[in-house]
Amino acid sequence: MHLSGKNILGNDQSAEGATSFYANNPATGDALEVAFTEATQAEVNKAVELAESAFDAYRQKSGMERAEFLETIASELAKIETSIVERGTLETGLPEGRLKGELGRTTGQLRLFASLLRDGSWVDARIDRANPDRTPAPKPDTRQMQIALGPVGVFGASNFPLAFSVAGGDTASALAAGCPIVVKAHPAHPGTSELVGQAIINAIQICNMPNGVFSLVHGASIEVGQAIVRHPLIKAIGFTGSFRGGKALFDEAARRQEPIPVYAEMGSSNPVFMLPGALRENFGSLAGGLAGSVQLGVGQFCTNPGITIVPKSEDATNFEKELEQQISTSESATMLTEAIQKNYVAGLETLKSKNEVTSLGRGSQKDGGAQGTAEVLTASAADFSADKEMEEEIFGPSTLLVKSENKAEMLEIAKNLSGHLTATVHGTDEDLKEYSDLLKLLEKKVGRLLINSFPTGVEVCHSMVHGGPFPATSDARMTSVGTAAITRFTRPICYQGFPDSLLPDELKDGNPLNILRLEDGQYQLPKS
Amino acid sequence: MHLSGKNILGNDQSAEGATSFYANNPATGDALEVAFTEATQAEVNKAVELAESAFDAYRQKSGMERAEFLETIASELAKIETSIVERGTLETGLPEGRLKGELGRTTGQLRLFASLLRDGSWVDARIDRANPDRTPAPKPDTRQMQIALGPVGVFGASNFPLAFSVAGGDTASALAAGCPIVVKAHPAHPGTSELVGQAIINAIQICNMPNGVFSLVHGASIEVGQAIVRHPLIKAIGFTGSFRGGKALFDEAARRQEPIPVYAEMGSSNPVFMLPGALRENFGSLAGGLAGSVQLGVGQFCTNPGITIVPKSEDATNFEKELEQQISTSESATMLTEAIQKNYVAGLETLKSKNEVTSLGRGSQKDGGAQGTAEVLTASAADFSADKEMEEEIFGPSTLLVKSENKAEMLEIAKNLSGHLTATVHGTDEDLKEYSDLLKLLEKKVGRLLINSFPTGVEVCHSMVHGGPFPATSDARMTSVGTAAITRFTRPICYQGFPDSLLPDELKDGNPLNILRLEDGQYQLPKS
Repeated sequence: MHLSGKNILGNDQSAEGATSFYANNPATGDALEVAFTEATQAEVNKAVELAESAFDAYRQKSGMERAEFLETIASELAKIETSIVERGTLETGLPEGRLKGELGRTTGQLRLFASLLRDGSWVDARIDRANPDRTPAPKPDTRQMQIALGPVGVFGASNFPLAFSVAGGDTASALAAGCPIVVKAHPAHPGTSELVGQAIINAIQICNMPNGVFSLVHGASIEVGQAIVRHPLIKAIGFTGSFRGGKALFDEAARRQEPIPVYAEMGSSNPVFMLPGALRENFGSLAGGLAGSVQLGVGQFCTNPGITIVPKSEDATNFEKELEQQISTSESATMLTEAIQKNYVAGLETLKSKNEVTSLGRGSQKDGGAQGTAEVLTASAADFSADKEMEEEIFGPSTLLVKSENKAEMLEIAKNLSGHLTATVHGTDEDLKEYSDLLKLLEKKVGRLLINSFPTGVEVCHSMVHGGPFPATSDARMTSVGTAAITRFTRPICYQGFPDSLLPDELKDGNPLNILRLEDGQYQLPKS
Repeated sequence: MHLSGKNILGNDQSAEGATSFYANNPATGDALEVAFTEATQAEVNKAVELAESAFDAYRQKSGMERAEFLETIASELAKIETSIVERGTLETGLPEGRLKGELGRTTGQLRLFASLLRDGSWVDARIDRANPDRTPAPKPDTRQMQIALGPVGVFGASNFPLAFSVAGGDTASALAAGCPIVVKAHPAHPGTSELVGQAIINAIQICNMPNGVFSLVHGASIEVGQAIVRHPLIKAIGFTGSFRGGKALFDEAARRQEPIPVYAEMGSSNPVFMLPGALRENFGSLAGGLAGSVQLGVGQFCTNPGITIVPKSEDATNFEKELEQQISTSESATMLTEAIQKNYVAGLETLKSKNEVTSLGRGSQKDGGAQGTAEVLTASAADFSADKEMEEEIFGPSTLLVKSENKAEMLEIAKNLSGHLTATVHGTDEDLKEYSDLLKLLEKKVGRLLINSFPTGVEVCHSMVHGGPFPATSDARMTSVGTAAITRFTRPICYQGFPDSLLPDELKDGNPLNILRLEDGQYQLPKS
């Protein structure tokens, strides 16, 4: 595995900057070869200009051609699995099995978007034919479909170095939509990013895609990302990360002369509500399930259950004991970066410094670098409701057990929640009937509402919503996972009075692509 | 027709403020009875709080119930057509025929959204069923649909006192989506607004809709609108008006602690490209058609063709002469307000003060109030390309004829255009073949692209896009006309692991609403 440490500007490498940085192995704190050169403003400009120059040719590629391109990226990635996993484990501290799984998820995601393009119906084709005889005015022929927005800036996330990074969900959906992309590599895994970026460049060359469809720029400072967001030719931003980072990009984009959409997935504490009957029947397995979900990936998932609400009862006490036991006997593991580990510890310290919060148990901490140690804390529902800070995400393997005196207190918590990615309710049939008002309240707060399950593990499919009301994301109308993510990078256009030959295939009279269309108010299925 | 001059807060009237204003008859400059009381901050707060209190009950009404509500609004409006038209003509200077037509368009629009709700498929239902046997992890059951965003602020537009005002497109689509609304009446037609508002209140009472689904607040100053945008319970804004007004609301919304989407349709100069063959074959009818489109509604349409690009030729000279003749022999008409008329005159003066711009002809100006007189001006393509100001909208019955020396100059203009609502190309089959690159350039600049037609007249149907890239709107991903406008006020939610009985009907196993759904990756049509 050879790494250049250079930026990838279209199909060329470039390292004109004077600043460089190294990736660190979070397990040892050691710097990893090679040095990565930060992109200069001129290099960012060049990447964006290449993206713009590629836009026309790329957006006019057929869905089939773009599908083949995505599939080729997937197969090029699969070819270098060994290198990716080797470098990835060094840069992230994540175990080999996790990275292999995540690579599978990443290639599966690219192939899912390819299948969406092969199907073709995603463009939401709508046809209203002319009626020259209509009075008082003739009806014109109008036809609508979704088209690509333009060059997109994608920010790699630290916590999914593959699935939410260089060839992750933002990349897959933007490329599927017909948008060239400029990716800002996350400085925590620049080598993994370069390997993935090179696989995309290979796919571009194999599929004869225009130079500039993809660029990758490095930067440990915030200037590189700002330069992308500020560039007038960039038309949308995809981001997964912290609230602070995402909100800064949102504000930057809103201040542009031409404001652009920013899709920032900014995390969440994913409240889990345990109802009385479920605790009575299953306190043991619920405690085990929750402990597992809290610790999955050392708690570094956006969907990590950071708040757990239980009604006070003997069953809840048993649940608490079991949870405490599971967490106390757990062993720490390496977190993604030293900074993340420090933030995790600081977040817990802040929470524990409150008189109203008690630690119930904590795992054992191993030696070595950025160790993340699981912890369970507790507070009363009344205190939780009085202190909005307790609702904030602590990124890492902890959960705050909130004990409510009665149903009203539980509903009060639900009612006052900010936006989250998910909320979960564990309940028997009886519970769910009695707490139907809880479900209705939670529906207004989240992008995904789960029953009798745990929020970690985000299925990549047509019906997934990985999003939710602010501050979970900057745009509740969208999802960053699943096929619906493609509409983040498109807009509708209406063609009026076009001769058939000048219409895109999606809208031609004979439906040559055989896609679902809404024709004169009636849905017409593709012929199978 | 009795007018109270009061704000409508839920089902009650209120006039607690100390400031009031009158509507003016633009044809005479006279103030019209009665005085309208500006809403206070407390009244705006009350309207929004009522909307929030109505939200839960309203969003859970079935599509059928909301459809009946929209249809009842339409029939209540039709009942008072005489009053609406009588007051409307006084407040707007628009002729009776136009207001009758616009009322028909408004009720038709409400009924179209009702039919969308009766059909039910608009929620974009997606179902991916569980697969407990999948390895390495079982697949959960996930189901997605669109749900209402929350209370919406709607700003009435001056130029469509019915179709883009109190019961206009924003209202119809927000109410259809399940969002209560707080409407800011346009101060140019407060009486018309009150009449329409009262019809909506009647419909609320007839249909037993919750108190607070609709409120109407008055204000001639900007504070009332700002109070709506700033209120934390407001979740989206619909606006049609000037760039300055729309951009101010956008900026206000972006500065909120929780930023919200603003759908501001901010106008456009709607370039029309006349190609050589079309001019040769039809210069006379093209000039007549353009003159008609320029003057329609005294040029007070967002889709008014403010720029016309012609290639220099003898045919173009003939076209120009005919256009000049038509405009010069036209008669002025009353504009909506004195302020609009003054802005129109000032805009023309600024344009004519440029050495590069010449007036070719001007209609005759009648006596009376705010008279808008048609005018055609001209500039060379080179000068137009050198001065971005020439592209800006002048709201009123004028067009700037831009003469290009060759195809390259025409393409250069298209390439440098900002975002517009529409662009139009007139061409023979031969022209369109030769200028296919022009069409591809324009596709990136507009929400609607027309061939051999004129941009005024926006069809209300499934395939319409009344929107476009900034600065035509603040959100190119959306349309404010047509059924797709409903998604401005919704967001997706995913239900995971829900028992069938707790799912919304749209997502239940048996498809009880008989709607289009994407089930396990296959579209399933409703049974007819």
